Amino acid sequence: MYRTHSNGELRLANVGQEVTLAGWVQKSRDKGFMIWVDLRDRYGITQLIFDEERTPKEMVDKAKTLGREFVIQITGEVIERVSKNSNIPTGEVEILVKKLTILNESKTPPFTIEDETDGGDELRMKYRYLDIRRNPVKESLIFRHKVAIEVRKYLSDKDFIEVETPVLIKSTPEGARDFVVPSRMNEGQFYALPQSPQTFKQLLMVGGMDKYFQIVKCFRDEDLRADRQPEFTQIDCEMAFVEQEDILNTFEGLTRHLLKEVNGVEIANFPRMTYDEAMKRFGNDKPDIRFGMEFGELNEVAKHKDFGVFNNADLVVGIAVPGGACYTRKEIDKLIEWVKRPQVGALGMVYVKCNDDGTFKSSVDKFYDQEDLAKWAETTGAKPGDLICVLSGVTDKVRAQLSALRMELATRLGLRDPKVFAPLWVVDFPLLEWDEDTKRYHAMHHPFTSPKPEDMAMLDTEPGKVRANAYDLVLNGNEIGGGSIRIHDKETQALMLSHLGFTPEQAKEQFGFLMNAFEYGAPPHGGLAFGLDRLVAILGGQETIRDFIAFPKNNNGRDVMIDAPSNIDDEQLKELNLKLDL
Amino acid sequence: MYRTHSNGELRLANVGQEVTLAGWVQKSRDKGFMIWVDLRDRYGITQLIFDEERTPKEMVDKAKTLGREFVIQITGEVIERVSKNSNIPTGEVEILVKKLTILNESKTPPFTIEDETDGGDELRMKYRYLDIRRNPVKESLIFRHKVAIEVRKYLSDKDFIEVETPVLIKSTPEGARDFVVPSRMNEGQFYALPQSPQTFKQLLMVGGMDKYFQIVKCFRDEDLRADRQPEFTQIDCEMAFVEQEDILNTFEGLTRHLLKEVNGVEIANFPRMTYDEAMKRFGNDKPDIRFGMEFGELNEVAKHKDFGVFNNADLVVGIAVPGGACYTRKEIDKLIEWVKRPQVGALGMVYVKCNDDGTFKSSVDKFYDQEDLAKWAETTGAKPGDLICVLSGVTDKVRAQLSALRMELATRLGLRDPKVFAPLWVVDFPLLEWDEDTKRYHAMHHPFTSPKPEDMAMLDTEPGKVRANAYDLVLNGNEIGGGSIRIHDKETQALMLSHLGFTPEQAKEQFGFLMNAFEYGAPPHGGLAFGLDRLVAILGGQETIRDFIAFPKNNNGRDVMIDAPSNIDDEQLKELNLKLDL
Repeated sequence: MYRTHSNGELRLANVGQEVTLAGWVQKSRDKGFMIWVDLRDRYGITQLIFDEERTPKEMVDKAKTLGREFVIQITGEVIERVSKNSNIPTGEVEILVKKLTILNESKTPPFTIEDETDGGDELRMKYRYLDIRRNPVKESLIFRHKVAIEVRKYLSDKDFIEVETPVLIKSTPEGARDFVVPSRMNEGQFYALPQSPQTFKQLLMVGGMDKYFQIVKCFRDEDLRADRQPEFTQIDCEMAFVEQEDILNTFEGLTRHLLKEVNGVEIANFPRMTYDEAMKRFGNDKPDIRFGMEFGELNEVAKHKDFGVFNNADLVVGIAVPGGACYTRKEIDKLIEWVKRPQVGALGMVYVKCNDDGTFKSSVDKFYDQEDLAKWAETTGAKPGDLICVLSGVTDKVRAQLSALRMELATRLGLRDPKVFAPLWVVDFPLLEWDEDTKRYHAMHHPFTSPKPEDMAMLDTEPGKVRANAYDLVLNGNEIGGGSIRIHDKETQALMLSHLGFTPEQAKEQFGFLMNAFEYGAPPHGGLAFGLDRLVAILGGQETIRDFIAFPKNNNGRDVMIDAPSNIDDEQLKELNLKLDL
Repeated sequence: MYRTHSNGELRLANVGQEVTLAGWVQKSRDKGFMIWVDLRDRYGITQLIFDEERTPKEMVDKAKTLGREFVIQITGEVIERVSKNSNIPTGEVEILVKKLTILNESKTPPFTIEDETDGGDELRMKYRYLDIRRNPVKESLIFRHKVAIEVRKYLSDKDFIEVETPVLIKSTPEGARDFVVPSRMNEGQFYALPQSPQTFKQLLMVGGMDKYFQIVKCFRDEDLRADRQPEFTQIDCEMAFVEQEDILNTFEGLTRHLLKEVNGVEIANFPRMTYDEAMKRFGNDKPDIRFGMEFGELNEVAKHKDFGVFNNADLVVGIAVPGGACYTRKEIDKLIEWVKRPQVGALGMVYVKCNDDGTFKSSVDKFYDQEDLAKWAETTGAKPGDLICVLSGVTDKVRAQLSALRMELATRLGLRDPKVFAPLWVVDFPLLEWDEDTKRYHAMHHPFTSPKPEDMAMLDTEPGKVRANAYDLVLNGNEIGGGSIRIHDKETQALMLSHLGFTPEQAKEQFGFLMNAFEYGAPPHGGLAFGLDRLVAILGGQETIRDFIAFPKNNNGRDVMIDAPSNIDDEQLKELNLKLDL
């Protein structure tokens, strides 16, 4: 062992002890006759002192050669510091060094190993092994470990069994974004990497495994939107002999456990909201309910005046921005510009200032009198001092636009406090969604999701209105988990696949093994999967997932540290019976 | 919830309660006026009774239609059984059914869902979801979960952090058995799947992560020897600021913890043995020390008589088979045939019967007298009643042959008791091994293994004699883990790679990021990886790993249940810029 103690543990009580420490040189201060070195490891920082009068001369000389990030081992005596540092737990002591060994030297690192570094993203990723030495990254990885440990503890205590499902599985044309893996032993054939262990966990339910979970890598070869990774980790769960309510309760329990153990936050109950309600009240199926600014639908009170824009709109809808009445004309113009950006896409914005004296000043005073505007204020819940922002247009679009504005304003107003946690369930998702590109319905969740029995009759007549036994767990405006009750009989599964445009042959080719399994006594079952990367980031109070992943890939799916993906040689291609076709 | 209780929990104390149960029909016995059904779930079996006098008629009629593996839900009253079954925990009660719901029907399964099934391997794998319903498979998967939970608990309590390393990494020509993954976004380029997270865990050490572990899938695209899988799971571990002794103690602790928690066996200390000693005493670097039959080297006492076979051999070596003196001539001939099989490859076998009266009868009485043979008995430790089996030839080969014979005889003699656990460390492995095919030295462990400093000088002169700081953990004749102290400075690493035949350019191309990392303050480090599949099988007292893997692949790397790997369509190949070249 290279050390008797870590650099985070020595206290006044240790004074007088001889200790051996090892770690990295964080910094050193050379006063000529005296040298201080901050020695760092995973556990903290301990101050070393080399003193001409008390330290052997050759040690002092050697100490003068130490550069940042040198790896050293020292032996010395714990002494009380003259000037104490109350910012660190070891700040009352220092080590009077008697022996110094340089274990490894270091070139000057390309960025500073400090909480706030001078390294840009690209540089940090290229030297990720140095970036990980920084507290924010190191702590994020340790935090992730803690979350995973608590997840396993909770689920295991509830009789869930973690079962490893295969990574080398079967490619399905439906899974257009599968990564594929050529097989050397099976010429011309390919495995696929799983986008999720969905069918395997359902087969485990057929196999009687009853309560399954797995913390598991999944893969998706798609253009990476910001903050997505081609490989990502799910907490994948499934239960048999349960109804939706049982699943919601179980995973509400898990989430409550995590919030308590990891964040020290107790949440009594998770609100439940239907998809329709979430869309109506927040314009969003993953509403951030840490703050208000709920949608007020203004059709009744804003249409049929002479304002054509509203009259031609499917939906006129507004939100009350707390304290927004004091925005200057310039600030409001900027807000209007913001909603007109292509990423948001509104054509314009109507606003109403709710003055402190109870009067209103709007951008549409020409069309609406004070009484009209008072009704707007009532519907949006605006109080004196607030600003009402109103958008109009096609329902889906205007909701998305106003939701974007609501989130943006909340961020600006500091209403999205990362230390506050507001989870909720969104339930009763639509079973199908219309895809404009392919002109057909797709499964909103996946093709194994069970429709609500009472809506089955609408499958032929109004497929878009059929609701599913599908639910999302939302935390602070992010979907952290989602799942559904599954179909467990072959007939319903066949019906669903035919509605999704599969011929019976295609259905058999792709899902034959699952359909077969349903013939041998499949129990009712359902489940849920959490996105672990996102979950830990949110619990950790962060917006981005990257620092919670040890070795993330960039937006092009590249690992810039190891330089992957890369070319492979012809020999290897030949063995795989492949040719490049560029 | 479809049930109030599981099928494993009802006892006499529950008599009188109304309960709802769900599960699979294990079997039913129809006596006309009375029907008994065994209802099964993951937790056990509960007997149901349908009785013409006490059960509604339509329920009795419905019960008559139940086939094996139907999924049902029942409600009824717990009553005391007339004829109790002491073989199952629920055997004192049964449920008088009042309500029966058939949740799903089942075709007759292709094999019986019993502990001893009539299904062959191929059929069981094709219907693995039914196979998992069988106790031996189900219990093996649950056992695996328990082992994994205990591993995480132990290591986490010791401050190890589980860090997920990437699955999509860089292919290296050296890793000729990499699975590769074409990247859609990076045309013509490939990721590789890791054969182990070796370099990443070393980078985590450079990153200060200090104590790392991960239970992680690894991949190897090679011809599958029996009982190997193309994807397998490792408990991968690494520590910084440690010496070999620290690593051995840490993972000895983990193994002791597992044996205690999972098997209820306490093992005080693990013997340590050098590679050389293991080869000499057992002819094997993973000796099974649950039993004796140690090698006795007979060169001194068997050479230089008139027996040419021995005189021409590098090594004459024997083992004493307990009680083997009573083997018939026919049995011994069969043993000789066994060692001459191509899989073993001996040219013949000399034997000595140690008679109860202290005399000897050997197959080479022409060349050796009683005094000679007494010395053989002394050297091999043979006692009256034993049989000495002697092989001779080239040292490496004859050791392997006699080791095979030793293991075979131990199996036949019942000396390999799966309930007995005999772990040991084998240390001081050779750094390099000569490869006849390529006519050069290869790293025995991997190119990052540190040579013993005191042997470094022999690298140029006698590379085969250089020992490494490498060690294996052996349990009951199986290598369950292996690791080494790593090289942590760039110069030694470069030297090692050059000895392994890498040009500086190749070294940079393949391991540049690791060599670079070593320039920024790499700490001394080392680690170990356990093969989880093998470990759980051995702890579970089994010889084969397959039933400890939920969805294993066959010897051709195929998943016969989902029929993977499979062809992919031209569209998909085109998107990947690939063409088949069959």
